[in-house]
Amino acid sequence: MSDQHNSGQHNRGAYTHADVHALAKRLSNWGRWGADDEIGTLNHVTRERVVQAAGLVRSGEIISLALPFDANGPQNGSFGRNNPVHYMTATGTDAVGGAQNHMRVSRHADDGIVMPLSCGTQWDGLSHIFYEGRMYNDRPAELVSAGGAARNGIEHTRDRIVGRGVLLDLPRYHGRPWLEPGEAIHPADLDGCVQAQGVQIREGDFVLIRTGQLAQVRDRGSWGDYAGGPAPGLSLDSAEWFAEADLAGYATDTWGTEVIPNETPDVFQPMHIVLLVHVGLLIGEMFDLEELARACAADGRYEFLFAAPTLPITGAVASPTNPLAIR
Amino acid sequence: MSDQHNSGQHNRGAYTHADVHALAKRLSNWGRWGADDEIGTLNHVTRERVVQAAGLVRSGEIISLALPFDANGPQNGSFGRNNPVHYMTATGTDAVGGAQNHMRVSRHADDGIVMPLSCGTQWDGLSHIFYEGRMYNDRPAELVSAGGAARNGIEHTRDRIVGRGVLLDLPRYHGRPWLEPGEAIHPADLDGCVQAQGVQIREGDFVLIRTGQLAQVRDRGSWGDYAGGPAPGLSLDSAEWFAEADLAGYATDTWGTEVIPNETPDVFQPMHIVLLVHVGLLIGEMFDLEELARACAADGRYEFLFAAPTLPITGAVASPTNPLAIR
Amino acid sequence: MSDQHNSGQHNRGAYTHADVHALAKRLSNWGRWGADDEIGTLNHVTRERVVQAAGLVRSGEIISLALPFDANGPQNGSFGRNNPVHYMTATGTDAVGGAQNHMRVSRHADDGIVMPLSCGTQWDGLSHIFYEGRMYNDRPAELVSAGGAARNGIEHTRDRIVGRGVLLDLPRYHGRPWLEPGEAIHPADLDGCVQAQGVQIREGDFVLIRTGQLAQVRDRGSWGDYAGGPAPGLSLDSAEWFAEADLAGYATDTWGTEVIPNETPDVFQPMHIVLLVHVGLLIGEMFDLEELARACAADGRYEFLFAAPTLPITGAVASPTNPLAIR
Amino acid sequence: MSDQHNSGQHNRGAYTHADVHALAKRLSNWGRWGADDEIGTLNHVTRERVVQAAGLVRSGEIISLALPFDANGPQNGSFGRNNPVHYMTATGTDAVGGAQNHMRVSRHADDGIVMPLSCGTQWDGLSHIFYEGRMYNDRPAELVSAGGAARNGIEHTRDRIVGRGVLLDLPRYHGRPWLEPGEAIHPADLDGCVQAQGVQIREGDFVLIRTGQLAQVRDRGSWGDYAGGPAPGLSLDSAEWFAEADLAGYATDTWGTEVIPNETPDVFQPMHIVLLVHVGLLIGEMFDLEELARACAADGRYEFLFAAPTLPITGAVASPTNPLAIR
Repeated sequence: MSDQHNSGQHNRGAYTHADVHALAKRLSNWGRWGADDEIGTLNHVTRERVVQAAGLVRSGEIISLALPFDANGPQNGSFGRNNPVHYMTATGTDAVGGAQNHMRVSRHADDGIVMPLSCGTQWDGLSHIFYEGRMYNDRPAELVSAGGAARNGIEHTRDRIVGRGVLLDLPRYHGRPWLEPGEAIHPADLDGCVQAQGVQIREGDFVLIRTGQLAQVRDRGSWGDYAGGPAPGLSLDSAEWFAEADLAGYATDTWGTEVIPNETPDVFQPMHIVLLVHVGLLIGEMFDLEELARACAADGRYEFLFAAPTLPITGAVASPTNPLAIR
Repeated sequence: MSDQHNSGQHNRGAYTHADVHALAKRLSNWGRWGADDEIGTLNHVTRERVVQAAGLVRSGEIISLALPFDANGPQNGSFGRNNPVHYMTATGTDAVGGAQNHMRVSRHADDGIVMPLSCGTQWDGLSHIFYEGRMYNDRPAELVSAGGAARNGIEHTRDRIVGRGVLLDLPRYHGRPWLEPGEAIHPADLDGCVQAQGVQIREGDFVLIRTGQLAQVRDRGSWGDYAGGPAPGLSLDSAEWFAEADLAGYATDTWGTEVIPNETPDVFQPMHIVLLVHVGLLIGEMFDLEELARACAADGRYEFLFAAPTLPITGAVASPTNPLAIR
Repeated sequence: MSDQHNSGQHNRGAYTHADVHALAKRLSNWGRWGADDEIGTLNHVTRERVVQAAGLVRSGEIISLALPFDANGPQNGSFGRNNPVHYMTATGTDAVGGAQNHMRVSRHADDGIVMPLSCGTQWDGLSHIFYEGRMYNDRPAELVSAGGAARNGIEHTRDRIVGRGVLLDLPRYHGRPWLEPGEAIHPADLDGCVQAQGVQIREGDFVLIRTGQLAQVRDRGSWGDYAGGPAPGLSLDSAEWFAEADLAGYATDTWGTEVIPNETPDVFQPMHIVLLVHVGLLIGEMFDLEELARACAADGRYEFLFAAPTLPITGAVASPTNPLAIR
Repeated sequence: MSDQHNSGQHNRGAYTHADVHALAKRLSNWGRWGADDEIGTLNHVTRERVVQAAGLVRSGEIISLALPFDANGPQNGSFGRNNPVHYMTATGTDAVGGAQNHMRVSRHADDGIVMPLSCGTQWDGLSHIFYEGRMYNDRPAELVSAGGAARNGIEHTRDRIVGRGVLLDLPRYHGRPWLEPGEAIHPADLDGCVQAQGVQIREGDFVLIRTGQLAQVRDRGSWGDYAGGPAPGLSLDSAEWFAEADLAGYATDTWGTEVIPNETPDVFQPMHIVLLVHVGLLIGEMFDLEELARACAADGRYEFLFAAPTLPITGAVASPTNPLAIR
């Protein structure tokens, strides 16, 4: 692998397909939790850890990490993803206008939604990415058809995404408002941030990586190519850091968690091949960490109870979520 | 109001529109939390209570209370509600079949959903029901248009639905597998169940009422008219019980929480008029309480940390949820 | 092949996979219109025939052959197909209720739809069915991915579905209100009906086969398993009749045009393999032929100008249509 | 009313709300076809005219006037309209990948669509626009609720949109490739074009007005604000021309048919108030007239058989269409 640099835009590595392959195979958890396993690193969520995580609630503050789900969301058509279409099937104006006069006294509004499951704040399922025709735990990609994911579907995570959350606020650590698109996050950044924040990363944690890209988006007043475009994010050399920490999951405030442009000209989103396909690590995207970052900075507590349930959509490869940090 | 009976199918009251009106106005919380309030009884979720609720986690067990969101769901077209349509926009079969060969090494699946927001396990928003042209906090129904709910939208609940959960297992209390459709739940049932379970109901609680209708559905092997049809549920005479307990919210394992047929021939779903429109009480529907009931019965602990975040869909009048009971 | 019988429910053949294979390969049009062809028998629509068909308009009567597209349609979930969900995004009640007061004077309603393209009156595209991994004109099935049909998509038919239409009213020919589900239509039935009606079938025609199943549905007052269930329809022994007539297309008033149960225990919908995949014949389904049948019977004219345009949905494998018979 | 100018960008009138009101009331057809009428000027489609229109077919050429319905369509979010979302529920890659191995021999692809009914080439229904709380034929706007249009729904047009079509190619008449956004079309333009083309406008015609904006869009290679933005189109002073010609309908190649910016600062889309609400005139939008214009110019024939059926979506206020010009 190439050398790399530690500052700003010049800190990117350069890796080949062979590098990605070797890393994926070396860090693979395929088989670790048995041939039937469909939840990967969520196996790290143990009852004991849930009890411990509940003990982190001190102030009782609840912070939602979800972006609004609406027509003004980040999507711009890349990867065929549109923003949510929220539709009404009964309204208050109907109620007043007489359209519900067949109802006995009660009047109501009702609604529905059409949305890509990855259009906003979301968890990637272990059926979302394939490498060499396989998904997590060595299952054939063919199991994910137009009928949905016959294995590794998001529904298996329904009762697992609760635990200790830790925020790593990288821009704050670096003394900047945000990391720049294309800027890579290396193990040294993560370790330095951990140390500066006076927090520890433990097995079974959910680690939330703030890059500040949402602050940048808000600063400029438009989404631009936030969805699908260049982003700060994980360098490939952080794969071991994430895999060996035995995290339950991690998330960022960017659309794909990885540094984009990728450090691998011949491989798109290589960390997904390593971490999602092979490590079986739950990956969260487009988490809004701005309010949480302010709260953590205010009192210096970067750990909290984290609950971010998926909707158990049968056979889904992703799920929208409203992640809660409970401090 | 009429007399009523305390056993089986003969326990139903008979009330008039005037009764409902009087009850609604007497129990109303309009203005209680100010003219700008949009979350009603979720104001009972205080930081102190969240801290206390977190202290209820003993075993670390996480139980999901969501029904699967899929084409085999309970909906049958009543109220124009269909079951979710889960669609794929990229698949593993595509990946293997060559349809993604323009991608660099990585292959992926992607998906989306079309669904009524009230098609499965869900929270009613305070913009869901109207009475005499008004919704919660005396706002005009006209604020809920085809563009969504301009006020009282579900998005305001995004960081509020965490607290102490209490299960009231009425069939177990009555020594039966389930309550029958049409069977009303009265304050005496609730109080008796509370006492039998050795639990207390406190201000700010989320109370989950098990009727066992899902056990009945599973026993007969088909949904039938579970969605929109006859159901066991709350009697109108329990309105004070719910309102005066200052709960944060409540939910049942039925489609509408109220006893159906309603006890009011001239008013459909009268408790929604009282509790949702006037008390501003968060109402949860189609919560799957079967596994939770078994766990509570096994160790006698009927209280737990409860987290059931809504998806912050802008202007929505309801939200699907995956409620978690963390014990 | 087995012998067969000519009356009522006993008129069904019995065929094997090998029979279907042989028939398909013998009647195949693959390559007939060149390796690039994507429209199959619509090549029979020539300018001369369009001019002749226009000459059939005598009375100026326009008859729509479309079922209503709405929530009360025939779908029951079989093949994952739901009925259309029609949603409003602006309403007249909104207009009156004040929700559009930001607009200058004008007020409006707006709407949308979610629907399977095969949920009602529709044309099958040549990308709809595969046999041994191939679709029409020997193209690999892999060309139809979650991104749509890269070849043989319905959009190629956009300017082709106009010509001479001929109704064959089989129940009327047989002196019955409708054919029964499971009843097969044989060449002798088709020829007898043609002769009795005093009409001729010509190259490039669109032939509409009335089985009367919609009359039966309306008579019993419910769809039942009209969509996906038993139906009267084409016997496999009529394949040559359809292929050798060099029709532009054909349609029936049933969900799948073939007799169901199929005459082939080991092959589902064998005629689609023969006629759609190999002959490249446009197939229309769920055409409402009742009003047309009454009109044709009234004046004895069974030929007309037929125009049934598809919506050019890029990459679609089917399209809803409102077919018009112009007499 | 103000004076106006006859060339380029300076040809726009200036009108007030009072002008629009007076014009609408003076030209109104409310009641003309009875109090129960729901189709307005489609009453001009008579059997005799359909027969005559069929006689216009000379060359047998069929030209589709529909834009492709796909994700690359003109919509940009204005008026809450997205481009169509085409989704697959079964694919050829599935077939090959084994996901359909439970099927007997046959394999298939299936699909669906989510789309605003006004997202592409479409007809406005008579329930689409309201003025002073009324829609066509003096019906209250409240009849169009979240449940759809109880009256004046598009389904009533299902068997009416066939007749004589006439193309008016205004850019060609003016010797320019296209009219510019903001450029108004006046009666003198229409009459001059009619005369130059040597064609006549007759009662019951469907008149297609080419502005060339689609040529401009293609020339610049992007939709830009084609949907919802500035456009060439009808001046308010052409209202009488359209109303008094007793047309069956008209359409343009722009998103809203009217000149935009409107000539009425205080009224949005005033011609819709006059022509749709009061005259009851069917309005078609985003018709692709480029190929038709080339064909008409080539042989000098500007009249043809026109068939542009709506999909009979119950209660819809608009319908996509694939209009056919049959020459």
